[in-house]
Amino acid sequence: MNFSSRLLEDAVNEISRLPGIGKRTGLRLILFLLRQPKNQTHNLSKSLTNLVDNITHCQSCFNICENKLCEICLNPKRNKKIICVVEDIRDVMAIETTGQYNGIYHVLGGKISPVEGVGPNQLNIGPLIQKLKKEQVVDELIFALSPTMEGDTTNFYIYKQLDGIEIKITTISRGVTVGNELEYTDEVTLGRSIVKRIPFENSLRSTS
Amino acid sequence: MNFSSRLLEDAVNEISRLPGIGKRTGLRLILFLLRQPKNQTHNLSKSLTNLVDNITHCQSCFNICENKLCEICLNPKRNKKIICVVEDIRDVMAIETTGQYNGIYHVLGGKISPVEGVGPNQLNIGPLIQKLKKEQVVDELIFALSPTMEGDTTNFYIYKQLDGIEIKITTISRGVTVGNELEYTDEVTLGRSIVKRIPFENSLRSTS
Repeated sequence: MNFSSRLLEDAVNEISRLPGIGKRTGLRLILFLLRQPKNQTHNLSKSLTNLVDNITHCQSCFNICENKLCEICLNPKRNKKIICVVEDIRDVMAIETTGQYNGIYHVLGGKISPVEGVGPNQLNIGPLIQKLKKEQVVDELIFALSPTMEGDTTNFYIYKQLDGIEIKITTISRGVTVGNELEYTDEVTLGRSIVKRIPFENSLRSTS
Repeated sequence: MNFSSRLLEDAVNEISRLPGIGKRTGLRLILFLLRQPKNQTHNLSKSLTNLVDNITHCQSCFNICENKLCEICLNPKRNKKIICVVEDIRDVMAIETTGQYNGIYHVLGGKISPVEGVGPNQLNIGPLIQKLKKEQVVDELIFALSPTMEGDTTNFYIYKQLDGIEIKITTISRGVTVGNELEYTDEVTLGRSIVKRIPFENSLRSTS
């Protein structure tokens, strides 16, 4: 493309680095911003910069937060004896939206996926195991990873690591369609599947 | 959606104001930025702010530029006696990419569209007519609006305004598919249609 302005070219190049946005879509978005009041673009820029400069991960559960601990871990009304293991913060948001869960979370940051070269060490699995071994105050661990092959592998890896630790391990009930991504599940199904969670060993039997 | 962070919510809300980007896509883009090095987001923010703060419209042709006049109007090699009328700067970029045109442009900023409430006064038609009447140094006016009903209406409106002014009025040849948007036309077709432009009156006869 022949940009008549270096400023325009820079902006299009930068916005095209976002996933799913090519040069043509990028140009369309930039020209849209040029037709809007300037402060819309200023607000967008400021909110993005503020976010990446000030956001951090909760030292306990790896959810995103603005201080050392996230709002959920800090909330005295949440039951700290139940930990729900999820893939990423979109899953935390999805479960929180159902309003059906009162425990805390542990965000793994992904799933074990040999195809994509993601092993257990790239995920926040170690801190979870340490927490469960050390504190011994956790009553229940709920697996809420997406029910895909990678999710099941990750569940099973954590389950094996907890051998010998007295803890109830459950998994959200499979109202969630198998093979589907957790974040696209409707609220009702997801809410019900976290209420009707079943012992992890039962879920192993039903899939084999 | 239940955002656990106000910073995250702000960023998602702002990016979702772009056309075609909803809350879910916005969240996906924001989480992508959070996984990238911070300076990618800083560069994006800076380029957007720089653009809206420093970009302006060429006082002569209404193309975007960084000074009073755009690079095309300032270029001594361009033939100032030929003016190509286009809808917006994407069309300038599309024609410039063909490398087949050596005149200058006039960017209308849209097309006459009664349906969308766009009349001649919302477009840069007045300055074009004034320029043509005052300077009397323009040999040829090329209509290169998208060949849609609105484009044809706009062409015809300008044509009528020029009644009595001695000027050759042409339109890019209809190699461009009728009903198609100009910016999506391939370079070869678009290049040929600007080289093989035909007198505007001929194009009227062929469509009636």
